[in-house]
Amino acid sequence: MNESIGKQSIRFGTPPVISGASSTVGPKESDGPLSAYFDEKVEDATFGQDSWEKGESEMVRRTVLHAIQKANRKQNDVKYIYGGDLNGQLIGTTFGIKDLNIPVFGLYGACSTCGEALSLAAMTVAAGYAEHVIAVASSHYGSAEKQFRFPLEYGNQRPLSATWTVTGCGAFLISNPTPENSNKPHISAVTTGKIVDYGIKDSFNMGASMAPAAADAIFQNFADLDVRPEYYDKIITGDLGKIGQEILIKLLYQQGYDISSQHTDCGLMIYDNEAQDTHSGGSGCGCSAATLAGYILKQVEDGIWKRVLFVPTGALLSTVSFNEGQTIPGIAHCVVIENGEL
Amino acid sequence: MNESIGKQSIRFGTPPVISGASSTVGPKESDGPLSAYFDEKVEDATFGQDSWEKGESEMVRRTVLHAIQKANRKQNDVKYIYGGDLNGQLIGTTFGIKDLNIPVFGLYGACSTCGEALSLAAMTVAAGYAEHVIAVASSHYGSAEKQFRFPLEYGNQRPLSATWTVTGCGAFLISNPTPENSNKPHISAVTTGKIVDYGIKDSFNMGASMAPAAADAIFQNFADLDVRPEYYDKIITGDLGKIGQEILIKLLYQQGYDISSQHTDCGLMIYDNEAQDTHSGGSGCGCSAATLAGYILKQVEDGIWKRVLFVPTGALLSTVSFNEGQTIPGIAHCVVIENGEL
Repeated sequence: MNESIGKQSIRFGTPPVISGASSTVGPKESDGPLSAYFDEKVEDATFGQDSWEKGESEMVRRTVLHAIQKANRKQNDVKYIYGGDLNGQLIGTTFGIKDLNIPVFGLYGACSTCGEALSLAAMTVAAGYAEHVIAVASSHYGSAEKQFRFPLEYGNQRPLSATWTVTGCGAFLISNPTPENSNKPHISAVTTGKIVDYGIKDSFNMGASMAPAAADAIFQNFADLDVRPEYYDKIITGDLGKIGQEILIKLLYQQGYDISSQHTDCGLMIYDNEAQDTHSGGSGCGCSAATLAGYILKQVEDGIWKRVLFVPTGALLSTVSFNEGQTIPGIAHCVVIENGEL
Repeated sequence: MNESIGKQSIRFGTPPVISGASSTVGPKESDGPLSAYFDEKVEDATFGQDSWEKGESEMVRRTVLHAIQKANRKQNDVKYIYGGDLNGQLIGTTFGIKDLNIPVFGLYGACSTCGEALSLAAMTVAAGYAEHVIAVASSHYGSAEKQFRFPLEYGNQRPLSATWTVTGCGAFLISNPTPENSNKPHISAVTTGKIVDYGIKDSFNMGASMAPAAADAIFQNFADLDVRPEYYDKIITGDLGKIGQEILIKLLYQQGYDISSQHTDCGLMIYDNEAQDTHSGGSGCGCSAATLAGYILKQVEDGIWKRVLFVPTGALLSTVSFNEGQTIPGIAHCVVIENGEL
């Protein structure tokens, strides 16, 4: 029996299983500390295409197919794809999956998209609407910088609070539990985030704009599930970076929760910020998606972490809203991922 | 008991109810044939704001609140918002709902977004995850033309195959059935569309790019539910326009289905194309959303139409994909809406 608990959470009676997961990354991520964990690492960030955007689509296509294959399933077994990316009108995802012949729900949650996709995929499977669905999220350094900040060719200086958009994709096959997949990680609960706006207007300081949303979603997860930080072995946000991490820990401390020993951030794990000159860390939908598919799920599968709170974080802006003087509101979605033996 | 039927459809055991619906439109829509059916009609398309985008957000905010109010509910009763618009990174929706304090799933399905939102909202309520959720979709002529074609100030000539983006929003409160709302229209089934790409590259001929996707989704709806066109009093697509309508009817005729007596299109109903110089008809997420909220639901509630197949249609392009020479793939989602007495 699925339970709607609290204002923002669902606990699944029969937790859906992450039966297959795949990650694909570009050259910079391949040189980073998590290199050994990614499924496919490319040296050519165009993925053999003639534009960054087409390269991103090719990355999405390969990663989705690989996730299905890793679960020993066929394209035909998949009832829906839930997916999105950072490009206007989701062209990264659209052109990546358009020939797969699978019904599609296009999503946009900025860099929180992986959490949004996993939540809806798990809700769909747990409700009995489908046996297998794909959740996927991607980002690409070339397409994102062109769209949000400056084209790479401009060669601008980046402030230290700036993050580096990950060229990466994570795809997940979410399935009904069966005796064969029962040892795989489960999604036991989700907490869906509200938009939180602290009035930040600096597009080079996304961490500060997203941290309040992450704090709000994590607080609500604790409240709805009636747990404390110790319930989780790790609490892993998407791409807050160093500055955002400090704000998040402080905000939750003020609410009576000390997450400093559990917290880490995909953006802080994916690069060696000193050696790779990535300033405040990695960002983009692909940052949390590839880190989950590659690194985090391996730790959960191996039982090193038994229960993880995965919290992708998004900054809700466009160049139009930014240039019109709007703030940068944030959003974050929580996904509770557990070892299959738990 | 909800049923997953066929490859792409779900039939709801206990169909969720559209307990409240509201529509807001701009001046051109207020002058059109459906004028009497819209809840709010504004003369100032900026909605009192200093940009088209901020105006669109204000329209979204008002329409969502009005839909909740029309169902005699409070903001606090709503567990999730499913919504989206045409703007890059969904800024129309984001800034419209950011202060409502309701968890959000951001969606992008181009002009099919209303169908995507209604499908997910109905799935969420029918699964027991929430008692009340909002589905919302909007578009704005000023923000859409600036983004996709030419700024209004440029004053370009429009070919006859071009459609006119509707300044409009439709919001729907989807609720559990109760004795009080049982007379309201129900959502009894949904069919989720695949991306269909016929290789169209003309951004002034969206109807032709979307018609194959609409044909595919409607065909699948007939097959999954094992029904024929006569099962529906009306089959209403989103914004195919005149040219798209001809293609749709022909494609389904080739598959053995004649929908010519049931079919109409929101884009063909919302304007008087001769008198209002709107060429091939209305388009945009707001076209189908406002037409459903204002006109279609009234016909269903009054029992004039007992059962309608509502099929918003989307063209999946961005200026970047278009300028890089990509095709314009289409998508469409089917929502079966029935009179409460059925």
